[in-house]
Amino acid sequence: MKGASRIREPREANASQAARHAPRKHILDLDDYSRQEINQTLDNATAMNEVLGRDIRKVPALRGKSIITLFLEPSTRTRVSFEQAGKILSADVINVSGSGSSSEKGESLYNTALTLQAMNADVIVVRHSAAGAPHFLAKHLKASIINAGDGGHAHPTQALLDLYTIKHHLGRIQGIRVVIVGDLLYSRVARSNLWGLTTMGAQVVLCAPPTLVPSDFLDGHLDTDGHPFASVEIETSVERALEGADVIMALRLQIERQQAGRLPTLREYSRMYSITPRRLRLASPNALVMHPGPMNEGIEIDPDVAHGAQSVIEEQVANGVAIRMALLNSLAAPARPDRT
Amino acid sequence: MKGASRIREPREANASQAARHAPRKHILDLDDYSRQEINQTLDNATAMNEVLGRDIRKVPALRGKSIITLFLEPSTRTRVSFEQAGKILSADVINVSGSGSSSEKGESLYNTALTLQAMNADVIVVRHSAAGAPHFLAKHLKASIINAGDGGHAHPTQALLDLYTIKHHLGRIQGIRVVIVGDLLYSRVARSNLWGLTTMGAQVVLCAPPTLVPSDFLDGHLDTDGHPFASVEIETSVERALEGADVIMALRLQIERQQAGRLPTLREYSRMYSITPRRLRLASPNALVMHPGPMNEGIEIDPDVAHGAQSVIEEQVANGVAIRMALLNSLAAPARPDRT
Amino acid sequence: MKGASRIREPREANASQAARHAPRKHILDLDDYSRQEINQTLDNATAMNEVLGRDIRKVPALRGKSIITLFLEPSTRTRVSFEQAGKILSADVINVSGSGSSSEKGESLYNTALTLQAMNADVIVVRHSAAGAPHFLAKHLKASIINAGDGGHAHPTQALLDLYTIKHHLGRIQGIRVVIVGDLLYSRVARSNLWGLTTMGAQVVLCAPPTLVPSDFLDGHLDTDGHPFASVEIETSVERALEGADVIMALRLQIERQQAGRLPTLREYSRMYSITPRRLRLASPNALVMHPGPMNEGIEIDPDVAHGAQSVIEEQVANGVAIRMALLNSLAAPARPDRT
Repeated sequence: MKGASRIREPREANASQAARHAPRKHILDLDDYSRQEINQTLDNATAMNEVLGRDIRKVPALRGKSIITLFLEPSTRTRVSFEQAGKILSADVINVSGSGSSSEKGESLYNTALTLQAMNADVIVVRHSAAGAPHFLAKHLKASIINAGDGGHAHPTQALLDLYTIKHHLGRIQGIRVVIVGDLLYSRVARSNLWGLTTMGAQVVLCAPPTLVPSDFLDGHLDTDGHPFASVEIETSVERALEGADVIMALRLQIERQQAGRLPTLREYSRMYSITPRRLRLASPNALVMHPGPMNEGIEIDPDVAHGAQSVIEEQVANGVAIRMALLNSLAAPARPDRT
Repeated sequence: MKGASRIREPREANASQAARHAPRKHILDLDDYSRQEINQTLDNATAMNEVLGRDIRKVPALRGKSIITLFLEPSTRTRVSFEQAGKILSADVINVSGSGSSSEKGESLYNTALTLQAMNADVIVVRHSAAGAPHFLAKHLKASIINAGDGGHAHPTQALLDLYTIKHHLGRIQGIRVVIVGDLLYSRVARSNLWGLTTMGAQVVLCAPPTLVPSDFLDGHLDTDGHPFASVEIETSVERALEGADVIMALRLQIERQQAGRLPTLREYSRMYSITPRRLRLASPNALVMHPGPMNEGIEIDPDVAHGAQSVIEEQVANGVAIRMALLNSLAAPARPDRT
Repeated sequence: MKGASRIREPREANASQAARHAPRKHILDLDDYSRQEINQTLDNATAMNEVLGRDIRKVPALRGKSIITLFLEPSTRTRVSFEQAGKILSADVINVSGSGSSSEKGESLYNTALTLQAMNADVIVVRHSAAGAPHFLAKHLKASIINAGDGGHAHPTQALLDLYTIKHHLGRIQGIRVVIVGDLLYSRVARSNLWGLTTMGAQVVLCAPPTLVPSDFLDGHLDTDGHPFASVEIETSVERALEGADVIMALRLQIERQQAGRLPTLREYSRMYSITPRRLRLASPNALVMHPGPMNEGIEIDPDVAHGAQSVIEEQVANGVAIRMALLNSLAAPARPDRT
């Protein structure tokens, strides 16, 4: 089959194979990933990026496998990224969204997922407004579950693509200074990145107005299940936070969730926290500018920064396909005796 | 093509080939199916279930064929089931739903379907709120039509998967006692099952509050077009109905359609008709519990029954994919001279 | 791969290959197409129609290529036509609609498209309510853009399928009399056909109530960028317009846009401008009846005409798949050294 050759694994992946982890069944969050497992996932994504660079982007890895995206909160980018990843691996991908779904008819999430599993879904990719929904499904189902964002809780595939992008540009993650700026209160992106970045040895600075910092962060109770967030700082001044930053992650201001009166005005927020060209100059000269999208340009990030020379925002999107290919492949590829 | 071998037909199918029916062009209802034709369809589904049991679920049967699902009423399970069935057979599947469709712009169903046919749809799978809509299309179009539910009228693929599930578990359908409990008034599932079950020789008991029994049933006028429903009973007491049942089908209470004041309250309905563990004990010891989904757990069925040892509800879903594969294949597979 | 042979190019296409144009990167409108390039596109569509006539409609031309349909205005027929075209060519097709998309979260069209491009879209097919949206994207993106309808501006793939249908039936376009009747004010179909038809040498008559003729047309300022519309007439009487017509194109009355009080009543419009059997007799005996769909039967066109012997409306739809296959193939097919 022309152009449908095997995925070639990169050198690093081969080198670390002896120490390979038992394959994971679900991707729920990064809180129990070791540094070794994260590195392995990033290496697998490198192999997938090689496939994406081909003229004919198609490998037969997941032929005859079924991936169902169950998005009960709206999303374009994450759903399309998973759909693209699955299709390039030759899986059948079926989309289920909230509108028009059984959920609208009052069916429980559990029964919806049981049904999709019974229809031979090998992997169910779930986005849900309730924190913990994917964990609940993983506990009770036999299909593999990928968390594509659960409430304000976790978004592990976003964090992995962020880690990939940082490592690709800076060569390492250990020891770099990453500043996450914005709406920490609702941000599953921030939470998953916090796990991933600290595990990889980065120094993380969280920066937000005091009203948008979760109280457990303010109290210094970042520690969950014994995982040390020793290197995490909280800083409410964006100017102080950005000094010497190697990476700046601007978070999307969840305008649609701002009902609670925690912000004076958008204008006020923007004036105080927007990543502008002037503020960017406080960071390291080659600092990377990142954003998980979709962006509110002019609010949390200035258009000139978003599309400027230091921005790697489009690369994040491109790397997202590679990361999701790596994860889908690890969950659903049939056992291959010839692939030691 | 690795893993893409032909569908193997089961022994029974081969045995009955001499007497095979001329292939049907449309699947509209079970009212004109003979016992032989139903058995043949169930046999074909057995062959498809063999495909579903493979590590790589993909056969090239419908490569280069086009299936369009036209769902003008919302549905997840039925649409996904057809989409999965089509994709496993290598067909191209395209989904059209009510929202965002030409129907919203006032186009007639007939013109929408003509358009889809002109775009080379080999099979159009239709769900519509109006009884008879698929029959109308079948009469006027050249494409094959599958009725995926038309108003309160018919849902033949659901009935076939129910028959398959019963036969698979009990070894036969002839002579067994099947109790259908619930919202008979709006139930296309009940109506199609009635045709299928009586054709196969089952003894059917319909059980509902008097206000939810269609008046033609109460009048004893179940007989349509000369087809004898000799063995059908109506029973308003669920306790009496369940005695000695081999199969219990709980129907979904169409809460969203309950505008007409035919029910005192949901609580009242549930107290009188819900399939509870206590009521289940009135049936035969190994009676099967079935439900077409999506379930209102706690209303028409108790969660402990829905997920209990006698429940075959997930198997119904799984068998639905096999039945739909068998039907799609029978409608759209190119003539094969090597397949006598 | 059985049935997956190369697309055979028709004799005419081969004949004109020496003079082939440099391939276009985007399909935005027909305003800069030469007669030669239009003929070449129609020839390529003839080759695609040969594929559509096969028992197994599948060629590997775009295997490993990715087409994303971004429909920010609702549409069934155009989206399904592109999806079908892409799938028959073996591309991966991913649909993004307005509802549930990032656009709803306030993301700019530019950032949405950048994101889809970063996910490896080779072609983005755009429908948008704003005139010029696809041109804007084409200017700033690297992916190929196809305009699938932008506001009241242009709909080039519709015009190309109309040209194909006319040429297929009448053998030529040069010198024929084409009457376009209806809601010219909002019609991107009329505008793109005007470019295509005049370039091909047809004599075009635009017919509408004065309130539905764009003022630039009434002023005689049809001329844009120096392109001569020398042969275009404006005629407010449908009876006079139809005399001797070879082709009658009825436009959809955009009922949903009629807020501005430009029509007395639908009944009045219908009485004055509907294409009825009686009016049809004013045209040439074998005049073709066309409509871009979806039709308001009984308003701009009589059902007996829409489904009568002179109607080629279904053929338009069928040819739409062939035209879109030709365009997608020209934009996304990998360079083939063996295809001089």
